[in-house]
Amino acid sequence: MRILLTNDDGIYSKGIEALYLALIEEHDVTVVAPETEQSAVGHAITWLDPLRVDKVQRNGSFFGYALNGTPADCVKIAITELMKPPPQVVVSGVNLGANVGVNVIYSGTVSAATEAAVLGVPSVAVSIESFEPADFSAVAEFIPRLLKVIEHEGLPDGISLNVNVPDLHAKDIRGIRITHQGKKQHLERYDRRLDPRGRAYYWLCNSTYTRDTDPTADSLALEEHCISVTPIQYDLTRYEMLETLRQWHL
Amino acid sequence: MRILLTNDDGIYSKGIEALYLALIEEHDVTVVAPETEQSAVGHAITWLDPLRVDKVQRNGSFFGYALNGTPADCVKIAITELMKPPPQVVVSGVNLGANVGVNVIYSGTVSAATEAAVLGVPSVAVSIESFEPADFSAVAEFIPRLLKVIEHEGLPDGISLNVNVPDLHAKDIRGIRITHQGKKQHLERYDRRLDPRGRAYYWLCNSTYTRDTDPTADSLALEEHCISVTPIQYDLTRYEMLETLRQWHL
Repeated sequence: MRILLTNDDGIYSKGIEALYLALIEEHDVTVVAPETEQSAVGHAITWLDPLRVDKVQRNGSFFGYALNGTPADCVKIAITELMKPPPQVVVSGVNLGANVGVNVIYSGTVSAATEAAVLGVPSVAVSIESFEPADFSAVAEFIPRLLKVIEHEGLPDGISLNVNVPDLHAKDIRGIRITHQGKKQHLERYDRRLDPRGRAYYWLCNSTYTRDTDPTADSLALEEHCISVTPIQYDLTRYEMLETLRQWHL
Repeated sequence: MRILLTNDDGIYSKGIEALYLALIEEHDVTVVAPETEQSAVGHAITWLDPLRVDKVQRNGSFFGYALNGTPADCVKIAITELMKPPPQVVVSGVNLGANVGVNVIYSGTVSAATEAAVLGVPSVAVSIESFEPADFSAVAEFIPRLLKVIEHEGLPDGISLNVNVPDLHAKDIRGIRITHQGKKQHLERYDRRLDPRGRAYYWLCNSTYTRDTDPTADSLALEEHCISVTPIQYDLTRYEMLETLRQWHL
């Protein structure tokens, strides 16, 4: 397949290289990724500034295009301008760190996949449950297999798959679990400090988090050494609330 | 009520002042907003850099706190650090330009409301269907009324209301319509130019867009001179797909 590969950790990250190596043997892979780390940018797009595209080499040979923008920018410009014909599937990742629970809404990795869905291209976001992953073998084993199934089954319009993989060797993965976005949430606070001139500044910190208990939640799949696959959409409507609101006296 | 007021156009925008004036007579309003325009930042949060909070005056008197961050940052730091006790409701806007259809996912205004929902505070995003609004009277009439109903009825956990108002005088509004996020989508392209050194750069442009036909879609409410109210959530799961995916041979 003709694949667009992007990420949010930037084109020089370990994660995107791992996916590239997993896909390049069987597929035609074009890399368009941010030139610098874009974690937690969510679905930001650049429209007040112009974008630049630079060719990047890794290990002495052409690797892909670096963009001075966000993951969603990468997908938008690749599909509408750089790749002709456009890609058949967009793969975003491997993100270093799981994108499960509430974190999904902050994720540039997931937003790149969502942007592809907006533009009518099937897409998969891939994250590994570690900031210093030891082992991409489960990703390398599962993602090419998943792409084959997507090629065969197709994905409905507007749907992406959010895949999270434990940081384990492929042989230690206990299974594939179809999950929903859970409620795991980091409980954040700000660390207030004074600069050398006595002015306050704040660092966002998170120490603890709430846990899921529902076994079909994304974070529990990881805890139980399973790969989590969640179908996600960009229609944010809570349909069950429509009738309730219609009863309100507005 | 104790209200946190924020936006994505920045603390100096016309829209946030219009909401402030609409709310201050009856409510205790704290303004925490980005120091500069943050349109299309989506749900970006700042965690690689520290945040600064500055007091801002408008018309010679204290207006609020300006943050060197995103709308979601404003809500996070206001609720967890700056406002004690925390707000009872978060209002985000008035955004200049409608946030309907696919655009909702890029919206900093909507993400501020979503962040409030994540943190357990009811919230409302407010946008007006014009980049140079002539008339905030419909906002000034409707939003205080909506807040009274929310105070009385409550909002379920994790739900925000996305409100879009036509740029019309309050007396010309034809009604309030409860809507779902529609499919209106700007068809974007990039304008490729060469800089004075002959290097390419790209501007994101949008000229045309797809139209909704379903009368309960958000954009059609605006076209028909109604205020649109959409219940939105941050659980992105497409639940109807779970069973289908479980049939896949993964």
